[in-house]
Amino acid sequence: MDMNTPDPNLGWLSEEELAQARRRLPIVCVEAIPVRVDGLGRITEVGLLLRATPGGAMARMLVTGRVMYGETIREALFRHIEKDLGPMAFPLLPANPVPAQVAEYFPLPGISPFVDERQHAVSLVFIVPVTGTCDPRQDALEVSWLSPQEATLDSTIADMEGGRGALLRAVLASAGVF
Amino acid sequence: MDMNTPDPNLGWLSEEELAQARRRLPIVCVEAIPVRVDGLGRITEVGLLLRATPGGAMARMLVTGRVMYGETIREALFRHIEKDLGPMAFPLLPANPVPAQVAEYFPLPGISPFVDERQHAVSLVFIVPVTGTCDPRQDALEVSWLSPQEATLDSTIADMEGGRGALLRAVLASAGVF
Amino acid sequence: MDMNTPDPNLGWLSEEELAQARRRLPIVCVEAIPVRVDGLGRITEVGLLLRATPGGAMARMLVTGRVMYGETIREALFRHIEKDLGPMAFPLLPANPVPAQVAEYFPLPGISPFVDERQHAVSLVFIVPVTGTCDPRQDALEVSWLSPQEATLDSTIADMEGGRGALLRAVLASAGVF
Amino acid sequence: MDMNTPDPNLGWLSEEELAQARRRLPIVCVEAIPVRVDGLGRITEVGLLLRATPGGAMARMLVTGRVMYGETIREALFRHIEKDLGPMAFPLLPANPVPAQVAEYFPLPGISPFVDERQHAVSLVFIVPVTGTCDPRQDALEVSWLSPQEATLDSTIADMEGGRGALLRAVLASAGVF
Repeated sequence: MDMNTPDPNLGWLSEEELAQARRRLPIVCVEAIPVRVDGLGRITEVGLLLRATPGGAMARMLVTGRVMYGETIREALFRHIEKDLGPMAFPLLPANPVPAQVAEYFPLPGISPFVDERQHAVSLVFIVPVTGTCDPRQDALEVSWLSPQEATLDSTIADMEGGRGALLRAVLASAGVF
Repeated sequence: MDMNTPDPNLGWLSEEELAQARRRLPIVCVEAIPVRVDGLGRITEVGLLLRATPGGAMARMLVTGRVMYGETIREALFRHIEKDLGPMAFPLLPANPVPAQVAEYFPLPGISPFVDERQHAVSLVFIVPVTGTCDPRQDALEVSWLSPQEATLDSTIADMEGGRGALLRAVLASAGVF
Repeated sequence: MDMNTPDPNLGWLSEEELAQARRRLPIVCVEAIPVRVDGLGRITEVGLLLRATPGGAMARMLVTGRVMYGETIREALFRHIEKDLGPMAFPLLPANPVPAQVAEYFPLPGISPFVDERQHAVSLVFIVPVTGTCDPRQDALEVSWLSPQEATLDSTIADMEGGRGALLRAVLASAGVF
Repeated sequence: MDMNTPDPNLGWLSEEELAQARRRLPIVCVEAIPVRVDGLGRITEVGLLLRATPGGAMARMLVTGRVMYGETIREALFRHIEKDLGPMAFPLLPANPVPAQVAEYFPLPGISPFVDERQHAVSLVFIVPVTGTCDPRQDALEVSWLSPQEATLDSTIADMEGGRGALLRAVLASAGVF
């Protein structure tokens, strides 16, 4: 899941070792849906990453990445949010570690609604309110803020790969965005 | 549940009408466990209300109260937190409206672990991080901040009435406080 | 919520008293989405109630109704499932009392996604696997079993009133039906 | 987590490869708390595995094990329940794939409440009602059924290693066992 958002720290594995592990073991990942909320906690905006694909199209993505050996889920969430949204995003990580959803990605389609060619990933998905300024550290990446209605439009969903659009819609629905 | 923390607005019911309704219908309530969290979202402190009982003892309480006709759960949560913790508490209401726990209070013991002599209440319980200064507007009320370990001690639990101590422990456990 | 599926027991309230209470207090309700599951717990079929409306059209509904004074949520769920699906449905009520979703119905639209002209209802929504034979006791009612894909089609959703179609889709999505 | 309950299929890894991976990557596990429920879904009994430790003491354990490459969480849950409780247990796997709790085990204490000397494991914990006869296939293993009150006694909790006692208590509390 970090193909597009390269992970500076490979979690004590060389690139080759990681590639090997990915063909042998499920990989633990976290995914964050950054949101802005109003004073009553209602979601007012949803942050999606926007990146140019090699083919020149734009793809929308969630904040996502691997949990490293020895790292807690909260630390991984924080690290990936900082990597993708910058150090001034000020995320409010959830007090409850139970995720909003668990997404199972498989290299081949048909086993679950989610596909990731590189690996079998078990991804814990969280809604994360952010209160600061989001400024991706990578040039190729942009954050776009959509209204909840825009974020769940068919056209937005279609811009997301591997079933992540359906995931986004499901998690927002569980948070009362219908 | 607002016997001890009187509700200035009776939700369009006279005191007498409310008393009647309470003998005929389950009452919808919200309960909030105010917490302070660190940068990773971990609970560092738990806020409990402290009040002198008529007998002179101290009782510990959660923030709690009724949902009024026409009011959303979020609005009720916000109103009761403001009433008990003051206007500068700056609570972060949850993006997800599904509560951490549902507590069913009955006037008679034995039906559930929770007892409320005045009513049959269905209470939606939320963990609510607060980021500001807590200053109860009522003289008789104090907020004390305990470490998660202190908050789940048998002695703390014993200071809470109607099974709320067990409720506190269960909800904190679900948030990773063991 | 029981306009269409009349409640034989009015919960110790006369019709008139209930009508009055409904204009003054939020009413606690339960809603069940009956499902059939395979050996791995995956939803294979979704049960929707089908009823002729006064205008002659068909409306799809969930199992739903009020929690009565003195009744637990589990008892209310069981009672309404038995009323709508018959005594041989053999529902598997959830071990965890936290609902899959909380739906807030208001008499006027715009406050939440859910509308119920008769009342302000706070509804706890559960997915309930049933293992037996479903046979509604009321002549006017039928149960139809749809595949998860059919149950979330726009045409199915459109047959449900008051926002319940969006609710159905959201709750199924939270259970991995995308 | 399968040290005590050996896994006949090593998930396409040799013992040595698995040992290596366990020092490099978090391992995805599932844990099941088998329960018996009454007609209203309330937990009446909790099943704990009982095993003689090398030192001759008795240890209580949950059903637990690794998710293999290419395997879904449901399949892993089913496989480990069958391995530990036998083919006639007839478990009712949850319709909702979001776990009751996520437990993070680390080889060294102090990072989380949970310790597993062999590995960093991210464990998805589920309550699983079983309806059949439980008969472990391994001679060294027994299932004992406790009342919810017995299962949460300090003496029971103390028989469980690595923090699993506190985990059991927390998950049962989230299901209304106080």
